[in-house]
Amino acid sequence: MADRIAVTYRVRSTHKAIEARARTIAVEQSVEMPVEAIADATVLRDVMGAVQQIAPVDESRDLFDVTIRLAASTIGADAGQLLNMLFGNTSLHDDVVLHDIALTPAQAASFGGPSLGIAGLRSLVGAAGRALTCSAIKPQGLPPEGLAEIAEQMALGGLDYIKDDHGLADQGAAPFAARVRACADAVRRAAARTGYPTRYVPSLSGSLDALRHQAGVARDEGLRAVMVAPMIAGWSNVQALRRDYPDLAVFAHPSMGGTAIRPALLIGTFFRLLGADAVIYPHHGGRFGYSLRECAALAQAARSPISGIAPAMPVAAGGMTLARVPEILDFYGPDVMLLIGGSLLAAGERLAEATEGFARAVAEHRYGG
Amino acid sequence: MADRIAVTYRVRSTHKAIEARARTIAVEQSVEMPVEAIADATVLRDVMGAVQQIAPVDESRDLFDVTIRLAASTIGADAGQLLNMLFGNTSLHDDVVLHDIALTPAQAASFGGPSLGIAGLRSLVGAAGRALTCSAIKPQGLPPEGLAEIAEQMALGGLDYIKDDHGLADQGAAPFAARVRACADAVRRAAARTGYPTRYVPSLSGSLDALRHQAGVARDEGLRAVMVAPMIAGWSNVQALRRDYPDLAVFAHPSMGGTAIRPALLIGTFFRLLGADAVIYPHHGGRFGYSLRECAALAQAARSPISGIAPAMPVAAGGMTLARVPEILDFYGPDVMLLIGGSLLAAGERLAEATEGFARAVAEHRYGG
Repeated sequence: MADRIAVTYRVRSTHKAIEARARTIAVEQSVEMPVEAIADATVLRDVMGAVQQIAPVDESRDLFDVTIRLAASTIGADAGQLLNMLFGNTSLHDDVVLHDIALTPAQAASFGGPSLGIAGLRSLVGAAGRALTCSAIKPQGLPPEGLAEIAEQMALGGLDYIKDDHGLADQGAAPFAARVRACADAVRRAAARTGYPTRYVPSLSGSLDALRHQAGVARDEGLRAVMVAPMIAGWSNVQALRRDYPDLAVFAHPSMGGTAIRPALLIGTFFRLLGADAVIYPHHGGRFGYSLRECAALAQAARSPISGIAPAMPVAAGGMTLARVPEILDFYGPDVMLLIGGSLLAAGERLAEATEGFARAVAEHRYGG
Repeated sequence: MADRIAVTYRVRSTHKAIEARARTIAVEQSVEMPVEAIADATVLRDVMGAVQQIAPVDESRDLFDVTIRLAASTIGADAGQLLNMLFGNTSLHDDVVLHDIALTPAQAASFGGPSLGIAGLRSLVGAAGRALTCSAIKPQGLPPEGLAEIAEQMALGGLDYIKDDHGLADQGAAPFAARVRACADAVRRAAARTGYPTRYVPSLSGSLDALRHQAGVARDEGLRAVMVAPMIAGWSNVQALRRDYPDLAVFAHPSMGGTAIRPALLIGTFFRLLGADAVIYPHHGGRFGYSLRECAALAQAARSPISGIAPAMPVAAGGMTLARVPEILDFYGPDVMLLIGGSLLAAGERLAEATEGFARAVAEHRYGG
């Protein structure tokens, strides 16, 4: 039997039309041509997608979960081709969401997964048994020294990770190398004062050449983590970066993640598969709208054990505030990183103090207290 | 005055809420932090997004076109960063579509655009004054010889371009190099018989390294065109490919194009900006659902004159049939490429004959006849 991957699509359809619609998806995502014109028996048996199950969702009669078994041989180990065969053309239809995927551990492992994972991220800052903390350097438009000043204040507050705003690229106001050197230096200075190994995470952007060059600059600065947006960089390029720099933790940013792929699957499963050690996403109730249920599913997808694939750290972000720290930690437990950006920056000249309050709230939290 | 790019978002909102919603988008796509905490006057003046106009759409009171002026300096000339700053985080909201963009010719030219464009695609096959023809080699799962046989039959029918199915990658059944050599050879053989310079267009996939390697194989085979899916490869990598291989025409495939970016803008404007000479998309009434109005806007975006940017060829595809050729040609006029795949393949052993019928129908069409 040929190796198959079970893929579930959530489809809006009448009861009457769903069987035909399911078959169209199976054809579109595999042979993509009139089935009756396929003469090759091997293609029909081993390559064509097969509808495995059609199940109504809850009580709704117009929403169905369609599970289709796609041939693993059409995908291979390239994450871009995974996306292409799972959802490429079907993404153009507005009646369907890519909802779930069931990979065998061997299939999952073929894509790579995180090189450091949750354990590596903890070990880089020496923090066990508690949630990790993170903030973001903003706004873009400041010169390197301005950004470095913010990074330094945040590091003096004792955070675990301080990442670039994802809008920071290789721009005139703060060219990549100058900015990264200034911020890395500022965080090092602060860490020498606090005695705490706060890590700076620069944002990489551009072609794979640019990603590699920028990762090299980061490594030369002694940094141990970088951030990239897989939906913009291209999944295969994140895989390549991860292979080339196995010593660097990869933070995945959700920019351009607004697709018809279920967020838990896109960010929790796929970004992890292609090598993200930490996956950033908007937690419920901030500037963006994922439901609590979706956030729980996302964290579960990122953290659940898969043999041969390290767990990825969920990074709850998107407009979080200090006041919400206890609630969020009780929701996720200790294997989470909390990212508070704008609401710390609102403290202005008292940034280091506000940041310290954030770090302390996380460190002192009593779960279920 | 700092250089600005006018970006229009179509937002679902009440009349009461739209002003605040517009301001949030302007902040989210620029400084991404509480505005009152920004101390730097230059950032406030030259970097922060500014709402330029809010206009109700038609008679609908719950749909608005919000035009925001974003700082060009935050974007630069990298197409991935263009996507990031125009729609990165805002794509995560489901009340907003990226609807339109107004670039100055200088801004547009900074991204590159097609190296060959419509004129180059015509000149490669020596076809003036008529629509071009295209088909696709399928199904995946066949060995190289099986795919080459289909390519040969199609080339004997006298098509202009024959492209790989976008599902074809570097797979076990037909590894890239073996497949491309077999198909290139088959098309050459057929072209020698017909005397017509039919062009084979292999599909590239994977990381930028893989794209480059595969483009090199194509060039070594004497091919003059390749296909890539920008939403999977990453826009910056398509730009890099276009710069490295200015002699190869780039066909953009819409795989994973199902985002909240208006299709005309995504495929017609952006894919052209980042270097596609030909943009493939589903024409109205096939397997996918773009409206005729959207198809017209897409073709207009691809073809309209922009100083310093070559026009890109719209490629109407997605389940077209021979019977629809006259209607489609009257709709687009001669500057279009028609792609008919599955419906030709349905002819089975009479593939060459069916293909010839397609080529003839296009060649002999009398516009507005």
